Amino acid sequence: MAHMTVGVEYGLHCLMWLMGSPDKPLSNRDLADLQGISTSFLAKIFPKLERAGIVAAFEGVKGGYRLARSPDQISVLEVVDAIEGKKPLFDCQEIRGRCAAFNGDPPRWATKGVCAIHAAMLRAEKAMRESLANQSLADIADEFGRKAPAEFFDDISQWIESRAVSKGPRGPSVD
Amino acid sequence: MAHMTVGVEYGLHCLMWLMGSPDKPLSNRDLADLQGISTSFLAKIFPKLERAGIVAAFEGVKGGYRLARSPDQISVLEVVDAIEGKKPLFDCQEIRGRCAAFNGDPPRWATKGVCAIHAAMLRAEKAMRESLANQSLADIADEFGRKAPAEFFDDISQWIESRAVSKGPRGPSVD
Repeated sequence: MAHMTVGVEYGLHCLMWLMGSPDKPLSNRDLADLQGISTSFLAKIFPKLERAGIVAAFEGVKGGYRLARSPDQISVLEVVDAIEGKKPLFDCQEIRGRCAAFNGDPPRWATKGVCAIHAAMLRAEKAMRESLANQSLADIADEFGRKAPAEFFDDISQWIESRAVSKGPRGPSVD
Repeated sequence: MAHMTVGVEYGLHCLMWLMGSPDKPLSNRDLADLQGISTSFLAKIFPKLERAGIVAAFEGVKGGYRLARSPDQISVLEVVDAIEGKKPLFDCQEIRGRCAAFNGDPPRWATKGVCAIHAAMLRAEKAMRESLANQSLADIADEFGRKAPAEFFDDISQWIESRAVSKGPRGPSVD
């Protein structure tokens, strides 16, 4: 299994759509229908993004989620940590203390500080996290924006507009 | 679950012991007994390390494993890849093609090349892998060596020596 679950992928894609719709909040259902993914799955992700201050929920007929901050102020790392928790790359079992030469009673020097093998992994984890911290939602959107034709953004605006109309006066809000 | 399994931790610890015993090969059983870990688990790891050219197996009464190369020529990344396979950080499900605006028939621009979200993850994975590639077994051993007193290495040499004696003329080799 990959380190990052599909929740991160769905979450980041949803945030791209919210970024593209700053004036019209999108509900879980809007985001699920727009991307052909499960509403119930998104319902588990969004409370995490809200708690992390990445999205804000708006209740009411035209309710839904918006980004809570400017997309250049939201790093990919924040999104990953919000959805996955701070999952380590390497889960050290501290086997160094079990060396037969210690006869079950490892000396202090042997278990003091971080194991050198664990330290090597922590350096790699730091490099990975720094890379994710240095990439923002705006950076990803820029990359996407260079590929997508202008008509695509018009199509999406129309799709969102049509949803707002179909919601009617008593339509769903966040859900 | 952490990205790297306990197999990587056991494998790296074993390689440290092989590095400390260049003249006397160590068997799976020696390495398991020395560290208080499972022999059968190590029996799954060592064929992978051998296939990757990281260790070499020696048959016979004094058989066992040795490092196949100088420890400064074996990177942590090689060991991780040998044991885990090239496991990705992020397993892209390509949901970009499912956008409702495409009506089930995504245009070429939408699915061409790597998804911008996937690309962000690949940059983080590259940073992680570069860090692991830039750290060798010798680097880890140096770090450990600065903590361990000289007596420890004597104790280990004696432990290994005593194993060689107890193996007797018809003792186990690689196993």
